[in-house]
Amino acid sequence: MKPSVGIIMGSQSDLPIMSEAAQFLEEIGVEYELTVVSAHRTPQRMIDYAGSARERGIKVIVAGAGGAAHLPGMVASLTSLPVIGVPILSSNSIDGWDSILSILQMPSGIPVATVALNGGKNAGILAASIVGSFDQNVASKMDEFKTSLREKVEASALQIEQKGWKEILKK
Amino acid sequence: MKPSVGIIMGSQSDLPIMSEAAQFLEEIGVEYELTVVSAHRTPQRMIDYAGSARERGIKVIVAGAGGAAHLPGMVASLTSLPVIGVPILSSNSIDGWDSILSILQMPSGIPVATVALNGGKNAGILAASIVGSFDQNVASKMDEFKTSLREKVEASALQIEQKGWKEILKK
Amino acid sequence: MKPSVGIIMGSQSDLPIMSEAAQFLEEIGVEYELTVVSAHRTPQRMIDYAGSARERGIKVIVAGAGGAAHLPGMVASLTSLPVIGVPILSSNSIDGWDSILSILQMPSGIPVATVALNGGKNAGILAASIVGSFDQNVASKMDEFKTSLREKVEASALQIEQKGWKEILKK
Amino acid sequence: MKPSVGIIMGSQSDLPIMSEAAQFLEEIGVEYELTVVSAHRTPQRMIDYAGSARERGIKVIVAGAGGAAHLPGMVASLTSLPVIGVPILSSNSIDGWDSILSILQMPSGIPVATVALNGGKNAGILAASIVGSFDQNVASKMDEFKTSLREKVEASALQIEQKGWKEILKK
Amino acid sequence: MKPSVGIIMGSQSDLPIMSEAAQFLEEIGVEYELTVVSAHRTPQRMIDYAGSARERGIKVIVAGAGGAAHLPGMVASLTSLPVIGVPILSSNSIDGWDSILSILQMPSGIPVATVALNGGKNAGILAASIVGSFDQNVASKMDEFKTSLREKVEASALQIEQKGWKEILKK
Amino acid sequence: MKPSVGIIMGSQSDLPIMSEAAQFLEEIGVEYELTVVSAHRTPQRMIDYAGSARERGIKVIVAGAGGAAHLPGMVASLTSLPVIGVPILSSNSIDGWDSILSILQMPSGIPVATVALNGGKNAGILAASIVGSFDQNVASKMDEFKTSLREKVEASALQIEQKGWKEILKK
Amino acid sequence: MKPSVGIIMGSQSDLPIMSEAAQFLEEIGVEYELTVVSAHRTPQRMIDYAGSARERGIKVIVAGAGGAAHLPGMVASLTSLPVIGVPILSSNSIDGWDSILSILQMPSGIPVATVALNGGKNAGILAASIVGSFDQNVASKMDEFKTSLREKVEASALQIEQKGWKEILKK
Amino acid sequence: MKPSVGIIMGSQSDLPIMSEAAQFLEEIGVEYELTVVSAHRTPQRMIDYAGSARERGIKVIVAGAGGAAHLPGMVASLTSLPVIGVPILSSNSIDGWDSILSILQMPSGIPVATVALNGGKNAGILAASIVGSFDQNVASKMDEFKTSLREKVEASALQIEQKGWKEILKK
Repeated sequence: MKPSVGIIMGSQSDLPIMSEAAQFLEEIGVEYELTVVSAHRTPQRMIDYAGSARERGIKVIVAGAGGAAHLPGMVASLTSLPVIGVPILSSNSIDGWDSILSILQMPSGIPVATVALNGGKNAGILAASIVGSFDQNVASKMDEFKTSLREKVEASALQIEQKGWKEILKK
Repeated sequence: MKPSVGIIMGSQSDLPIMSEAAQFLEEIGVEYELTVVSAHRTPQRMIDYAGSARERGIKVIVAGAGGAAHLPGMVASLTSLPVIGVPILSSNSIDGWDSILSILQMPSGIPVATVALNGGKNAGILAASIVGSFDQNVASKMDEFKTSLREKVEASALQIEQKGWKEILKK
Repeated sequence: MKPSVGIIMGSQSDLPIMSEAAQFLEEIGVEYELTVVSAHRTPQRMIDYAGSARERGIKVIVAGAGGAAHLPGMVASLTSLPVIGVPILSSNSIDGWDSILSILQMPSGIPVATVALNGGKNAGILAASIVGSFDQNVASKMDEFKTSLREKVEASALQIEQKGWKEILKK
Repeated sequence: MKPSVGIIMGSQSDLPIMSEAAQFLEEIGVEYELTVVSAHRTPQRMIDYAGSARERGIKVIVAGAGGAAHLPGMVASLTSLPVIGVPILSSNSIDGWDSILSILQMPSGIPVATVALNGGKNAGILAASIVGSFDQNVASKMDEFKTSLREKVEASALQIEQKGWKEILKK
Repeated sequence: MKPSVGIIMGSQSDLPIMSEAAQFLEEIGVEYELTVVSAHRTPQRMIDYAGSARERGIKVIVAGAGGAAHLPGMVASLTSLPVIGVPILSSNSIDGWDSILSILQMPSGIPVATVALNGGKNAGILAASIVGSFDQNVASKMDEFKTSLREKVEASALQIEQKGWKEILKK
Repeated sequence: MKPSVGIIMGSQSDLPIMSEAAQFLEEIGVEYELTVVSAHRTPQRMIDYAGSARERGIKVIVAGAGGAAHLPGMVASLTSLPVIGVPILSSNSIDGWDSILSILQMPSGIPVATVALNGGKNAGILAASIVGSFDQNVASKMDEFKTSLREKVEASALQIEQKGWKEILKK
Repeated sequence: MKPSVGIIMGSQSDLPIMSEAAQFLEEIGVEYELTVVSAHRTPQRMIDYAGSARERGIKVIVAGAGGAAHLPGMVASLTSLPVIGVPILSSNSIDGWDSILSILQMPSGIPVATVALNGGKNAGILAASIVGSFDQNVASKMDEFKTSLREKVEASALQIEQKGWKEILKK
Repeated sequence: MKPSVGIIMGSQSDLPIMSEAAQFLEEIGVEYELTVVSAHRTPQRMIDYAGSARERGIKVIVAGAGGAAHLPGMVASLTSLPVIGVPILSSNSIDGWDSILSILQMPSGIPVATVALNGGKNAGILAASIVGSFDQNVASKMDEFKTSLREKVEASALQIEQKGWKEILKK
């Protein structure tokens, strides 16, 4: 089956964050592809990737990068598919502000769907929710995922209420 | 035809920004609905809106709010549809940082697709691109829109090159 | 005796900070309850908690959360009891700015009494001072607490003046 | 009847913001007093004010100041009553950050219940909600106030839905 | 004579700032060309521009853009000529931080020579100083320019010392 | 009588702010001199000014500048007299942060006594207080000044208490 | 001999930073006193300290504090002596911004001579330079100190130039 | 052969960052000199260095400094050669903002070509690209360097695509 989500990142060092998107998509059963594409070091590769994505069946692109992060915005300029941007806190970043603002503050006409700093998993969830808008099977799994989030909090609350917070903190 | 995009905002004062999303969707031919829903003043209305969106045929929700902007994130917690958040620069905001961070920095599990400050139009474009991923007709119009962006820049460049910048600045 | 302060937090990982509020209330002799309520993962639980708080005898709610922290503000929208918000520095936070601004910058009509970043203890003190405004016994204990703060500084000053700073720094 | 809320500000220039607290308390029927007290220009007056507040029947102090805003925190150090701090955007402020951080980031032991920048009205609402925790009459009026907030949003939503956003924006 | 400096900007709205670079180069006698190239709206045009710059005789490229400003960095990725970046304060910018960080914080391997916010004139001066490093004639003019800066300050100082500051402020 | 305070600024455009220092010193009866010295445009003039200040009888230097404000720190490196720095909000500044940080964050060994943004008057007061530490006559005048600050606040408070805030706001 | 510099800090935990001021004054031969005074925990002690400083022979007060740091500004409001403020990076600070802005951004009339974050040594140097403005002996020692700073850099430069940077980095 | 790039830094502690510029220039075959020059501790040495640079054959100066970093801007004021500034994250810096803004935000007339925080290597690359604009041999090597950047990313992408991200992360 052809992948419907394309995950790219500016550098292999972004893999620990970006693999969380892949991990979630696997769990939810959405096909994806994952590779490295650098806006600054491989501009032609970026152009080829973005230009061919729709015809390869991709529905959503997830792009992560750190520092002056141009990959998500440049990919968004090269395709009319929705692009999710993941700001990554890299070394020598200024607390992540550079990556966030470089991805978020796109000019009128070229939006990037930005998620939280280091939000690889949330990018995967957002990509799946987009697929789920048009695929009932994925939508059902997304609802199950939401239920599991709720149940974990309820279990945690029950544990604190029954054992008391002092017992929990001892651990 | 049932609307596929739901546009909501925390206050009527957000309308000048949020109407840009509606305006774009009209131009591109995507049906939408638009109303006011406040996380803080009408929490039950928000719950009802988010809870019934999917069954009403909505594919994407666009939510805008200013200050400590909880509407996009809360709606995202109440539905598994994709939610696009528009940070709005309201009076007494701290340069928009409050709205941006309240929408962007969602915890793991509940992403919001955040666009630029006051990015109402970009939210509309992003919503259309999501619809376009699964609707060839909309995709074609999105490609035309991208072409029009390019052509405007090319015309502007030609004008500067031919007339010279001094002539342009005189106007 | 029924608790007069309700302490809630978005995640069990907030417990080390939020337990400081509980600890202070125990020391000052104010009854409290403590549990986990997530705005984003258990919205219905949050609504139930806030909606029933006054009739359960709660006078003040203390709510802590990190990142795009919506819990304090949403609880404030669901009750007319005073709500104290504790911004928590979570992982992948942007130095705590996200949590501070999401809690502090509430729109007109729905205030949250925000304390300092990671200010769990201060939230407990503030809650006790509110109870103490209407309970002479608690007020007396709050005055004793203030005296103890003063005495600790005076003892520290005396020690430095008598031993000299070089001696103190050696330790 | 003796006032239960004391409203103070560092300078008469803060009055436009701080009078919103007074205005709300009048509407809700909570007695208050209002005057100017400067931490930096009248330190003795501040000490006298804070030291006598409880015996004068004050239950909550609302203090507003701009720039390096020391008034709320210093008053909190001089009384065990709850103190609500209002950061005010003054001229030559750095976007309000100075006032916010000077009020919010109090050290352990001396909390200030901080509200949003220029949040004079919210400070009044918070003060009333504290009084309402121990006064059923005020609590009822606070619930009515919350209802009025909701109704205004619902009316606004209805208007947009019926007239359409284009009609609204024309005005 | 072929231009040695290429001035480009993301949008015609950047012209008031970027024309200052052109103005300075004219005054100092360095040939330049000036046009509009948008990273996001005309990516292919950007690639063509950057790829052919060296063979067209360009020695330095000056690129200005606002918001998530990708033009300077992308051009730097597409040529090994030195690229000077001018952050521009656009509407809906967050005080210019977005543009500054998007241009300045380039990853290792792809530097952009960033000047101050709205520093169009300084970009022209920097471009001329680079040309002047290899062209004695331009270097002499740059030294004259530095002398003129000094003389203006000295004249201003003399005026204040002779007339007194009260007289100057009256004007 | 020889001036004991030297007031300098990087540009004549800083005069409206820096003249407030001069104005205060005149009122308090401390002799001063005032001129323009630019670190970047007249470095030699700056060296001469700083190098001769002590022998000309100067006790304190007050230096104001905007943007990347190097004048106060460079003067501090060229003399062992105390240097007071005034950050000035210039055009194209980033909210004044550039000027504040360029003056405040001096390396170990070379302090600058920094005052608030646009704090020309406060710089004059600080300079006078330094002179007053060693001149009983100036010290007495400084105490009178402090008294006048207090009296103005007390008069303002009396007016509000007597007339009521509604009357005051009408004006 | 009576001390001419008074060093105070809000908490004993500030001693590692503030002792650097004492250390410098010892080396330069300026008498000082050092103790703990908390604006928030010992307000009366602060008032007594500031009120009696001038008559005890103090010429300059050095005050350090972290977070919402009110000590330097409050002491400046209670004396007409010059007050040097040292922002200290405390735990749960927001990168030191809270302490810097609480000390720096004092209102008109009450300046604090602010030094860099954690600038205990620089505060000592600034205090000594103030004493040196009126004491030829101290002035000479300050000039010697400046010479020693220069010589250290020159020795370091010579070492790098002679050994080469690769040799230096090996260490 | 005479060096064409002069690398200077404010302190030997900046060497680990600044040596990356030297390292790159060695690899690319551009002659350089490297030493320590402090704006604040050795102002005369700075003046001599900058004043003689052009006649010694220097084409570009690379200057790095931390905190209130005045070295790059002051050197730019003392020569009409292009000056590249490297902001360095020093201890007690405020996340690097102080260094960045002190270098970047130079006033009109005196630009500094600023690179990213700790961007020593990028400063070397920028210096080489400037030399390469006028030296075909260096230009060719710069193009080779760009090719090597591209090849490294392509190899990394190939590895991830072939082995899969799970295999890569195991390492």
